[in-house]
Amino acid sequence: MAAPGGSTCDAAERSVVARVPPLLTDLYQFTMTYGYWRAGRHREHSAFELFFRENPFGGSFSLFAGLHDCLLFLRNFCFTDQDVDFLRSVLPPATDPAFFQFLRSLDCSDVTLRSVPEGTVVFAREPLMEVAGPLAVVQLLETSLLCLVNYASLVCSNAARFRLASGPRRKLLEMGLRRAQGPDGGLTASRYSYIGGFDLTSNVQAGLLFGVPVAGTMAHSYVTSFTSMDEVSPQTLVDLNGDREPVDFISLTKGWLGRVCELLGAEPGKIHEGELAAFLSYAIAYPHNFLPVIDSYSVTCGLLNFCAVAMALCELGYRPVGVRLDSGDLCKQSVDVRRVLRLCSKRFSTSAFDSLIIVGTNNISEETMVEFNNKENEIDVVGVGTHLVTCTKQPSLGCVYKLVEVRGKPRMKISEDPQKSTVPGRKSVYRLIDADGHPFLDLLCLAPEPAPEAGRHLRCHPLAADGTPLSVTPAQVICLRQQMFTKGKVTQPLRSAAETKANVQCSLQSLHPRHKRLQEPDSYTVALSEQLYNLVTELRRGSTKKNNFILGN
Amino acid sequence: MAAPGGSTCDAAERSVVARVPPLLTDLYQFTMTYGYWRAGRHREHSAFELFFRENPFGGSFSLFAGLHDCLLFLRNFCFTDQDVDFLRSVLPPATDPAFFQFLRSLDCSDVTLRSVPEGTVVFAREPLMEVAGPLAVVQLLETSLLCLVNYASLVCSNAARFRLASGPRRKLLEMGLRRAQGPDGGLTASRYSYIGGFDLTSNVQAGLLFGVPVAGTMAHSYVTSFTSMDEVSPQTLVDLNGDREPVDFISLTKGWLGRVCELLGAEPGKIHEGELAAFLSYAIAYPHNFLPVIDSYSVTCGLLNFCAVAMALCELGYRPVGVRLDSGDLCKQSVDVRRVLRLCSKRFSTSAFDSLIIVGTNNISEETMVEFNNKENEIDVVGVGTHLVTCTKQPSLGCVYKLVEVRGKPRMKISEDPQKSTVPGRKSVYRLIDADGHPFLDLLCLAPEPAPEAGRHLRCHPLAADGTPLSVTPAQVICLRQQMFTKGKVTQPLRSAAETKANVQCSLQSLHPRHKRLQEPDSYTVALSEQLYNLVTELRRGSTKKNNFILGN
Repeated sequence: MAAPGGSTCDAAERSVVARVPPLLTDLYQFTMTYGYWRAGRHREHSAFELFFRENPFGGSFSLFAGLHDCLLFLRNFCFTDQDVDFLRSVLPPATDPAFFQFLRSLDCSDVTLRSVPEGTVVFAREPLMEVAGPLAVVQLLETSLLCLVNYASLVCSNAARFRLASGPRRKLLEMGLRRAQGPDGGLTASRYSYIGGFDLTSNVQAGLLFGVPVAGTMAHSYVTSFTSMDEVSPQTLVDLNGDREPVDFISLTKGWLGRVCELLGAEPGKIHEGELAAFLSYAIAYPHNFLPVIDSYSVTCGLLNFCAVAMALCELGYRPVGVRLDSGDLCKQSVDVRRVLRLCSKRFSTSAFDSLIIVGTNNISEETMVEFNNKENEIDVVGVGTHLVTCTKQPSLGCVYKLVEVRGKPRMKISEDPQKSTVPGRKSVYRLIDADGHPFLDLLCLAPEPAPEAGRHLRCHPLAADGTPLSVTPAQVICLRQQMFTKGKVTQPLRSAAETKANVQCSLQSLHPRHKRLQEPDSYTVALSEQLYNLVTELRRGSTKKNNFILGN
Repeated sequence: MAAPGGSTCDAAERSVVARVPPLLTDLYQFTMTYGYWRAGRHREHSAFELFFRENPFGGSFSLFAGLHDCLLFLRNFCFTDQDVDFLRSVLPPATDPAFFQFLRSLDCSDVTLRSVPEGTVVFAREPLMEVAGPLAVVQLLETSLLCLVNYASLVCSNAARFRLASGPRRKLLEMGLRRAQGPDGGLTASRYSYIGGFDLTSNVQAGLLFGVPVAGTMAHSYVTSFTSMDEVSPQTLVDLNGDREPVDFISLTKGWLGRVCELLGAEPGKIHEGELAAFLSYAIAYPHNFLPVIDSYSVTCGLLNFCAVAMALCELGYRPVGVRLDSGDLCKQSVDVRRVLRLCSKRFSTSAFDSLIIVGTNNISEETMVEFNNKENEIDVVGVGTHLVTCTKQPSLGCVYKLVEVRGKPRMKISEDPQKSTVPGRKSVYRLIDADGHPFLDLLCLAPEPAPEAGRHLRCHPLAADGTPLSVTPAQVICLRQQMFTKGKVTQPLRSAAETKANVQCSLQSLHPRHKRLQEPDSYTVALSEQLYNLVTELRRGSTKKNNFILGN
């Protein structure tokens, strides 16, 4: 069963504020900040960029997520007396006491965040967020922002891949709470799996906090807790139209069991009484929501019991919902189950049996989803836990946070590993769209440069290539980042999980299939403008000449 | 730098209570509970067992963790009006309103938890926790308990493996916050990495909440934020003994730079001025805690700058701490660095240079740690992030929670996959110790059975074997589980992280090296007593005969 939840931003907000205290960061942020402060550099206007260097899971795209929590974190950023007292106890005794007063006074009122909107398709090496403000403050924000973006984007991207692998038809249920990194890991997983393309979660708290529709019916323990018909109570059920006395539901079901067994050539004496008792008990409690797990003993046995109870429900006017399979070859079993359900429908003229859903769960991975598309099966809803929430294929996204400007001067780290070099300066990021409406190139320009124009040819330099410049003409140009936070205030409406989910689908929709392929996709081009490329070249040349790898003056 | 924290159970407690609301569970726990309630079975005294089926990471042991949080969760378990209102909105409309009043009245006052103490070495398929009480309540606890135990035990076991791979000498620093599953994933990782054998964390909030010693000095961004000597301020430092006027620290360092370059045959003109400025600035701010990252440009350059600043510090009576390497071949680099440090020590008669520490960080895995033991290197402290907190090798532990008794009758799930069958009944778990003090077998007995006696021969049936019974004589017998919670109260003192950490080391200490081996360890035997084995056989036989897989009567 599923219940849609409303938009519950306030609850989500309270939850995030509580769990991201400003001390949830690495100690070196404070020792470095003390260094800046001691040198009188703490107010120097600086900018950091947040980006990742490789798309996860061997794909050619990622989804950007975590912004909502980052904005709340910035808005509420300040140190309590308790925080400062603790810092006093862990920073070296030589720390000037005035530094702690300085910390106590800090907030994000001078910080400006420009960011890609949450739920947007993004690519490796393009700056997703630019955090600008006093050096001391923007340095202190690093770890918390990375922590909020890394896993959210990773699990959101993973969910999107499950959705792509599954196709739009099947319903996807996230059920990974018990395998996540503790309570909040589970909550984050539920929220961003939904945003990335899942329909439902089993996690009730995620329903409460983020409005994610929740679903679930029964586990094997429910079935195994019953041993005999004596445990079924009440044993009656009223007709849906209420125009009869309550009916003895056990007798009714036993009658149907006989007919079902006859139809399928099975022996009624061989069914599992405890399982039948469990199904009966559940159906009497929730006659509108009958969807039992049918493989506690064997699918054959579970299916007989299901059909008998479901037929009895139908006779009383209720519509049973479906069955869950939790072991073995789900594809084959679902086909067998469907055949039996159709047989019942035909033989007993029960159209409700034609629309029963089959839920498949059991260690589902992206590969399983791909298999579901290639192999005959009748699975309507897929429940995914471990492989979704732990992102088994790649359990972390390597977002980094790099300094690009101090006091108006570009900063660049030049590494022997070209992938580890940074792109200097404050930038604008443009997404170039082709005539068919597909994005084909993301362009990084220096902030003061004019935006590229639709229909106008431009030259640029792909980031990950042999240096051959490209000539392109966009049919449309989108400015990818927006100002999201300034002067202590969030400057765009905070989006609910459902709104961000819609953005994900919209953003993925426009992406060309060749970039969306899960296996061996075409890589997407991220390029530098001529001006930015020239700055990089100049800084590189200067660094080689002067052996001074950072050029600010 | 590292600062030991005190015992801060109260803060830890507040944090956990806030983050494990009773709705942080799967929806089906509520639909099942409704089924029990509707059938009048909700008060039936029942017992569930929590265990995992396979040791993680290819090892033959695991560490049990998460108990502390489970106890607080039990103690505080109750539904608020808001919770119940939300449940009303997601459970089927047919749900009897009286059920919500029932939920509102629930707590754990009738629940008893018997558990292995936190931080104990445990093995696959032995019951770690037994949760007994009214069927409705113990069912509702499932997901939250699994969530609290699974990741805590996994990351604790992972940390213990890093510690075993590293040997006792090296200090281990956890620094995975930015790659964990969101804020609380990071906090849980820091806490249980410490418990599993790490010495330090970079996570300040983990220091505040759990008393984990925190450490850290500087990142590359600090170094790259400096470009010239003009940014160093103040430029003076006082002699440690305070018996001189403040000294021009830049000039002093430049003098040393000349001497160091001469010693090493390097050109002072080739050093990176921004890096030197960053080091100077940090040393002036923290003259007692000088430990810079030296590979922002090149280790050669960073090391020259380090030696110059460190020699200047020594001249003023301070002891520099060490250097951090964050890229490339850490083993080789550390050897080269050590040679230079020794050369300086000898040439300049500076004994402080003999005790400098070398910190190595950069995507360290268990394999890297093993390599550190096999290859020449001079690394004293290792910082581990991603591979520790995400448990890359196996990102989830598969703890399950299975029904073993209802109303005094044993429950058993018999599966075609023997690994998925459960062991029925309420049990005692004994650890049998050999004459050398090593545990050699864990024995599961039915609760009413007398405990095995030291020096007395017994027969038992290994769980994972061909059915051949074993005859063993323990030199000592330990009852592995204790009552931890009953009548709404925690009945054992809540342990601090440091206390649990001590238990981990003690428990690992006694384990025989053949079980501790990281690669291809000998598997440890978990066995059933004769009585328990007979019960299993009887239930299996009964189930085959009656095709009734669960026997309760």
